[in-house]
Amino acid sequence: MQFQLTKEFLEQLNNAVAENAEKEVMRLVNELHPVDVAEILDEQNLEQAQAFFNFLPKEFAADVLVELDEERREKFLEALSSQEIAEHFIDNMDSDDAADIIGELSEEKRGEVIAHIEDLEQASDILKLLDYHGDTAGGLMTNELISVNWNWDINTCLKELKKQAEELERVYTVYVVDDNNVLKGRISLRRLLLTPGTKKVIDIYESDILSVTPDVDDEHVAMLMDKYDLVSIPVVDELNRLIGRITIDDVVDVIKEEAEKDYQLASGISENIESSDKFWIISRARLPWLLVGLLGGIVGSKIIGIYEGEIQLHPEMAFFIPLIAAMGGNVGVQSSALIVQGLANKSMGLTGIWSKLGKEMLVGIMNGLVCSILIFGYTFFFQESLNLAVTVSTALLSVIFFAGIFGTLIPLLLHKYKIDPALATGPFITTTNDIFGIFIYFFIGYLMYA
Amino acid sequence: MQFQLTKEFLEQLNNAVAENAEKEVMRLVNELHPVDVAEILDEQNLEQAQAFFNFLPKEFAADVLVELDEERREKFLEALSSQEIAEHFIDNMDSDDAADIIGELSEEKRGEVIAHIEDLEQASDILKLLDYHGDTAGGLMTNELISVNWNWDINTCLKELKKQAEELERVYTVYVVDDNNVLKGRISLRRLLLTPGTKKVIDIYESDILSVTPDVDDEHVAMLMDKYDLVSIPVVDELNRLIGRITIDDVVDVIKEEAEKDYQLASGISENIESSDKFWIISRARLPWLLVGLLGGIVGSKIIGIYEGEIQLHPEMAFFIPLIAAMGGNVGVQSSALIVQGLANKSMGLTGIWSKLGKEMLVGIMNGLVCSILIFGYTFFFQESLNLAVTVSTALLSVIFFAGIFGTLIPLLLHKYKIDPALATGPFITTTNDIFGIFIYFFIGYLMYA
Repeated sequence: MQFQLTKEFLEQLNNAVAENAEKEVMRLVNELHPVDVAEILDEQNLEQAQAFFNFLPKEFAADVLVELDEERREKFLEALSSQEIAEHFIDNMDSDDAADIIGELSEEKRGEVIAHIEDLEQASDILKLLDYHGDTAGGLMTNELISVNWNWDINTCLKELKKQAEELERVYTVYVVDDNNVLKGRISLRRLLLTPGTKKVIDIYESDILSVTPDVDDEHVAMLMDKYDLVSIPVVDELNRLIGRITIDDVVDVIKEEAEKDYQLASGISENIESSDKFWIISRARLPWLLVGLLGGIVGSKIIGIYEGEIQLHPEMAFFIPLIAAMGGNVGVQSSALIVQGLANKSMGLTGIWSKLGKEMLVGIMNGLVCSILIFGYTFFFQESLNLAVTVSTALLSVIFFAGIFGTLIPLLLHKYKIDPALATGPFITTTNDIFGIFIYFFIGYLMYA
Repeated sequence: MQFQLTKEFLEQLNNAVAENAEKEVMRLVNELHPVDVAEILDEQNLEQAQAFFNFLPKEFAADVLVELDEERREKFLEALSSQEIAEHFIDNMDSDDAADIIGELSEEKRGEVIAHIEDLEQASDILKLLDYHGDTAGGLMTNELISVNWNWDINTCLKELKKQAEELERVYTVYVVDDNNVLKGRISLRRLLLTPGTKKVIDIYESDILSVTPDVDDEHVAMLMDKYDLVSIPVVDELNRLIGRITIDDVVDVIKEEAEKDYQLASGISENIESSDKFWIISRARLPWLLVGLLGGIVGSKIIGIYEGEIQLHPEMAFFIPLIAAMGGNVGVQSSALIVQGLANKSMGLTGIWSKLGKEMLVGIMNGLVCSILIFGYTFFFQESLNLAVTVSTALLSVIFFAGIFGTLIPLLLHKYKIDPALATGPFITTTNDIFGIFIYFFIGYLMYA
């Protein structure tokens, strides 16, 4: 049932396409889902992909286009006239997908395509959707939905529903509105089926309904739908009039993208990239944080430079530089990651900054003691120097303790000033703690050996 | 509409609970969703929470119990008799939630609770669900679903649907089965509404349906539902008989947990913890990676120890130890994160390991050159030593180049041997690259100054 793309299949398909064997091509992809076909197109070279795409029936091709990799889609659309795009594809799409795709076109082509859309109502829906920012509820919503008037009886509802449902692929929730299209609540299909036909909607609908306005941040929408286990959420304007709905599949993408962004920031990658992107795009996304690391390394070299004389006298001090720097970085990343995750999940509860700091201090003392006792033992017995053992273990304890505090405070501060706290988890905190660790280490060493 | 828990509200509620003012308590929480009530309970101390919980109507309390923090729920259930748990709560829950909660009880209490469930069919459903492992489709599924026989006509369907729907909160998909309960396909409510009542299901149902068996990994289920934009997926046994369904809300949790796990591993946290956990749990989850870092630091100290004489003669060599180590770590984390994310998204495509390595080499050369030219300039002009400038910049170029290769290869290798590749992104790869970087640096330095 589930399709698994193989090299053999791809070869077979490419041969059939090359031979212009339409029947064979259609036999191969007959049972496939648009997502699977999009996956195939992403693996072909542009020429093969375009030839294959032309074999697909237009309505199916529209679904495939929606699922395609953005870069590839752009290439496809460049090769088509505005009229073709509008009549073959946009007309077959839901308004949200259509708006997303038109939004990717050049400004000039955008206008042409919209002018070619035959259904004027759809054209106007798309124009409205294009106005919303991509990262808001408006950017996620679609205008297609099912609503009933609260003055109707159930029989009228069912009749209207049949009419409206013809345009809809999936019914999630039936929304209840008043004569002015103001959202009043919802009614489940189940309830509609179970209620006698002469009853009125106003007597049986459920009035507890959560809605959002188009300007709400998409991450907030995702949080709400996740928290309250919603499969769809209505979008209303400032007068509470129903203008659209957002479905869970789009929100799953938001949740995944958000998690990926945090993960990439924590790994020192500054743009949303994939391993399949071109190498210079990957380079560019990775370079900024490397430069931060470079700068940090230079500052570190300056600090060590102050103690040049010390090192000449006690070169063994240099042995533990990487240990101290690495541990500071590790602890900082650990504690900031917990805070970033807590902020992202809104799972921080009502406890304030002080209780978090207090806990982090306890963790720091505990893990710091374990690590510094171990390193004291090692240094004392294997390097046979009490001075060195005391220096390394005291520095390590302080570094673990303070790195944890910085790692807790910095993301909380960034969050307070509306900056993405995930920025703190990357090389930024590692580098800061590297430098701080080296400073502490040499300062203690200086005191010990002085 | 949306509830926001505040300290003031909590205080008001706690006062009402302390005064045993049932009316006031119910007034305060009257409009709230079970999730919101669970959030309140998590913020109260145990005594307050238990007193508050006792005010809630039993059916509502069952929904709240499902949403509660696991630790708190355990405390609540300890205070209740098996009979109370079964009759007040389990009887009001869907089978999957009931199985999850019973699964958390001690083995002894588990048997007692099941013995007290009044609905024997539900008891048997729960027993079956308890057998499945939590990380599989079986662990996610619920037995409550709606199915129709393909020999029925639409009128019979609608009648049966009304009967079945009474037990169900939400209808996602109506499944179509044959006389042996073998899954044949699905039929949308829309189609049922639009089709004349005398038509037969077998003539209008849709046969393309994706299903999973209970042993399928939950992450695979999540991937399927995400890829094909499904809101529910049926679960079948080895004879393709319909035994349950999985809904998108449970899968969203799987997706989030998976992302969190990867994020925590990348940040050097070895258990799934939250910032609100007790400090010794946080300590324990963080210590393992700190010990890895400690060990790495000791190995690093050994390597530097070999060049003790060099350092005494050229203490400036020590200045750039942190820079080299940090850059190796940063690059390693960047490249492994991309691979881990690609593996998690199945977005690696058909391109093989060699093309990935080739690309990583290009990125390494590019970013390595930029960084090493910068550091050459800095060292040459500010430290005024050609030897040092050549050593630092050559070492940096090599470190960036090789750290990228290691970062690419290690997660791919782990994945090949069925080990979670996310393990590679944490302090493991940082530490390895730290050590490697130091080795390269001193080796080049030795050659330059010799």
